[in-house]
Amino acid sequence: MNCVLRDSMGLLVCYIILFSGLVVLPQGGLGARMNSASKEGGFHPSTTNSSLTQEVEVQKQAPRAPFKLGPKIHNWDQQRAAWLAKYPHKRLTPQGRPNMILVTSSPPEPCPAATGDHFLLKSIKNKMDYCRLHMIEIYYNMAIMEMDDFWIKLPIIRKLMVSHPEAEWIWWMDSDAIFTDMTFDFPVEKYEGRNLVVHGWDKAVYEDKAWVGLNAGIFLLRNCQWSLDLLDMWAPLGEKYGNHKNEVGDFLSKELLGRPNFEVDDQAALVWVLYSKPELRPHVFLENSYHLHGWWVDLTAHFDEMITKYHPGDGGSKWPFITHFVGCKFCAGKYNSSSLERCYYEVERAFNLADNQVLKPYGYQHESLSSVDVKKVSDEVTHPLERLGIRLTD
Amino acid sequence: MNCVLRDSMGLLVCYIILFSGLVVLPQGGLGARMNSASKEGGFHPSTTNSSLTQEVEVQKQAPRAPFKLGPKIHNWDQQRAAWLAKYPHKRLTPQGRPNMILVTSSPPEPCPAATGDHFLLKSIKNKMDYCRLHMIEIYYNMAIMEMDDFWIKLPIIRKLMVSHPEAEWIWWMDSDAIFTDMTFDFPVEKYEGRNLVVHGWDKAVYEDKAWVGLNAGIFLLRNCQWSLDLLDMWAPLGEKYGNHKNEVGDFLSKELLGRPNFEVDDQAALVWVLYSKPELRPHVFLENSYHLHGWWVDLTAHFDEMITKYHPGDGGSKWPFITHFVGCKFCAGKYNSSSLERCYYEVERAFNLADNQVLKPYGYQHESLSSVDVKKVSDEVTHPLERLGIRLTD
Repeated sequence: MNCVLRDSMGLLVCYIILFSGLVVLPQGGLGARMNSASKEGGFHPSTTNSSLTQEVEVQKQAPRAPFKLGPKIHNWDQQRAAWLAKYPHKRLTPQGRPNMILVTSSPPEPCPAATGDHFLLKSIKNKMDYCRLHMIEIYYNMAIMEMDDFWIKLPIIRKLMVSHPEAEWIWWMDSDAIFTDMTFDFPVEKYEGRNLVVHGWDKAVYEDKAWVGLNAGIFLLRNCQWSLDLLDMWAPLGEKYGNHKNEVGDFLSKELLGRPNFEVDDQAALVWVLYSKPELRPHVFLENSYHLHGWWVDLTAHFDEMITKYHPGDGGSKWPFITHFVGCKFCAGKYNSSSLERCYYEVERAFNLADNQVLKPYGYQHESLSSVDVKKVSDEVTHPLERLGIRLTD
Repeated sequence: MNCVLRDSMGLLVCYIILFSGLVVLPQGGLGARMNSASKEGGFHPSTTNSSLTQEVEVQKQAPRAPFKLGPKIHNWDQQRAAWLAKYPHKRLTPQGRPNMILVTSSPPEPCPAATGDHFLLKSIKNKMDYCRLHMIEIYYNMAIMEMDDFWIKLPIIRKLMVSHPEAEWIWWMDSDAIFTDMTFDFPVEKYEGRNLVVHGWDKAVYEDKAWVGLNAGIFLLRNCQWSLDLLDMWAPLGEKYGNHKNEVGDFLSKELLGRPNFEVDDQAALVWVLYSKPELRPHVFLENSYHLHGWWVDLTAHFDEMITKYHPGDGGSKWPFITHFVGCKFCAGKYNSSSLERCYYEVERAFNLADNQVLKPYGYQHESLSSVDVKKVSDEVTHPLERLGIRLTD
C-alpha cells in the first residue's frame, strides 16, 4: 500500500500530490474528500482506520512521497531559451522545420510470440523510413529505466526533453503503430500555442470521460515547462513502486466510460488528468481531422479499395496517416479482440502499403499488399537525375 | 548454363564481360584463354564442344549478355556535379561533414532461428544510435530487388547512389556487425582521392589473393563514376540468373588462398576484381589502422579488461570500432565455427557495450555487459543544461 488508504468511512481514498496542488481520487461516486497538502508534495492522510493492515500502519508511520520522474524542474523554458540563444542554428532543421524526435520502444528481451520480433523489426523500419523522409530524429528505446509496461514512455520522454534542448517536439509512437501515409507531414503550424497533440475528441474526454476519448499510443509533447509539468502530474498515477496500480485501475474503471477493469494504464490516467485539470485544456489539441491514430480494424479492410481510388497525402479516411494495431499485442503474443494471425496478416499489409511508397523511387513495388516479394515497376535509366531537373548530354 | 562452357579441350572457361573490357575466368591453373569481346558486352565463346547439352546449345544460339545492375551510366560525376551546383547547400551536413548513407539489410521473412529477429532488432537499434550520434542517414533494406543472399548489397548501393546525389559516401554494413565504439568518427579526410574503403591488407589481397585479405561485410563507396563502374565489374560474378555461381565459386576457391568451396560470394569476387584489375588500386584504401571490421572471436573475450583499462575513442585494439559476428549467421540459425548460443551471448555483450555509451547521458548503464537490465548511475538534476554550459538562477 502506498498512497491508497481506507478512511474511517471505509471508502477508498487515494491522494496524489501533484506539482502545484493535489489531485484527489476518487471524486463523486466514490466519496472523495478534498485535503490540503503541503507544496513539498508530502503524503497527508487526514484520517486513518483502526482496521488498517500492519503493512499500511508501517507506511503510515513513514509515508513515502509520491513517485517522481525526477527532481522538479521550474525554469525549463528559460533554460531552453538560453541554450537556443547560444546555439540559434539548432532551432530549426536545414529545411526550416522545428526539430522533432520520434521515440518508440520495445522490450530488451525476445518477444514471447514466435514472430513478434520480426514484426517489431518491420515496425521500426517503417518508422525509420518515415523519419528519414521527414527529417525527424528517431530514438529507439530498449531500456526499462524507471516505469515499465504502458508507462515506459513517460521517463524516456522526459529524458529526451532535458537532454535534447534542440528538439521542439518529442513524438511518442507505440511499436504497434505503423505509418501508412509516408507523404503526410505533421502540421506543426496548426499547433501554435498547443503543447500536447493527441488523437481524440473534446466531448469524449471533457464531457464523457471516455477511456477511448483519446489514444495515448501516439502523441506529441512540446519540449517546454508545461509538458514537464504534465509528466509530473501523469506519472504518479502509474508510479513505479507500491501496489496502488490495481486500486487506481479499479477507480478509473468506475469513473471512465468503457474502461475494462485492470491496473491503471497511461491512457486512462491521461484522460483523468485532462478531465480533472481544466486549466490544461487550452494547451491540448485533441486531433481528429486526420488519423494521427487510426484503429486498424476500421482501416485495413479498405486498403485495396483505397489504392484504386486514392493516393497518399490525405492522412485521414482516404489514406490513413497512422494505422494502429491496438489490441493485437503482437510481441506479447496475447490478443484482445482479434486473433494474432489476423493481426500479423494486417500488419504485413500496412507495412507493405507504406513500403510501396518508400520503394517506388527505387523502381519497385510489392507484388501484392500481403506479399514480402517485390517486383520491378520501372527500369533504371542512364540519366537518373533528369527527374530531379538535371539534364546533360553525354 | 550461362557464361560457362566447356571448350574443345574440355576445360572450364567462363567469360565475364565487363564495362571496359573483359575479365576472363579462370586464369592459370584452369587453362584460361584470353578472348576479344565487343564493347557491347556480348557473350562470344570462341569454340564449342559437340558434347554440350541441349540447354547450352540453346544458350549458344541466343547467348545472353552478362548480368547488369542497370544500363551503363557514363557521366555520373558530371550529373552529380550539376545537381550539387543546383543545390550547393546539400553538399555537406549542417556539421560540415560530407553526407553519408549507411545501409544494412535483413530478410523480408522471419528468421529461421528462434531469436534471430530479436538480435536483428538489437543490431538495427545499434546502427540507428550510431547514425543519430554522427549525423549519418540510415537506410534499412528488406526487399530482394535484383540479387540476393551475399549479393543483395550491390543493387541497393547502386540505387542509393543514383537516387541520393547528396550522399558523398554509401556505407554498407552487414546485419551481423555491431558498432562497439559509438564515439569513433569515420575519418573522411583520410580518404581523399580514394573511392572504396574496406578493412583489409594490401599484401593479402594484391599478393596472396587471400579470401580473408579484406572483409566485404563493411565497406564504404564514394558516390562517383568509379564506384558505379566497380559495381558493374563486381555484379556479373554473382549474376542473378544462370547457374554459373557454383562454377565461379569452384574457380575462386582454387584461385584464392583459404576459400572453402561454395558458390561465389561477394567477398571472393571483390578480392578477385581488385587483384585482377591493378588500375583500380590507387582508388582503394584497404584499412587496418582501426577496426572498421573486427572479428568477434578476437575481440569479445577482451571486453571486460578493455572497460577497466581503456575508454571508447581508439577504434582499434583498445576499443574496437565495429565488432563483426562473421560466421554466426544468427538469423539463418546456422553456425560456422561457433555455437549459436555463444554467438548470441557475445552479440548481447557487444550491443550492451555500445548501449552503455548511448545510455550514459541519460544516467543509466547495463547492470553487466551480459544483462538486459539497466541501473541508474546518475540522478536527474533541476538544471540539466548546466553541463551544456547554460547556467541560470531560479
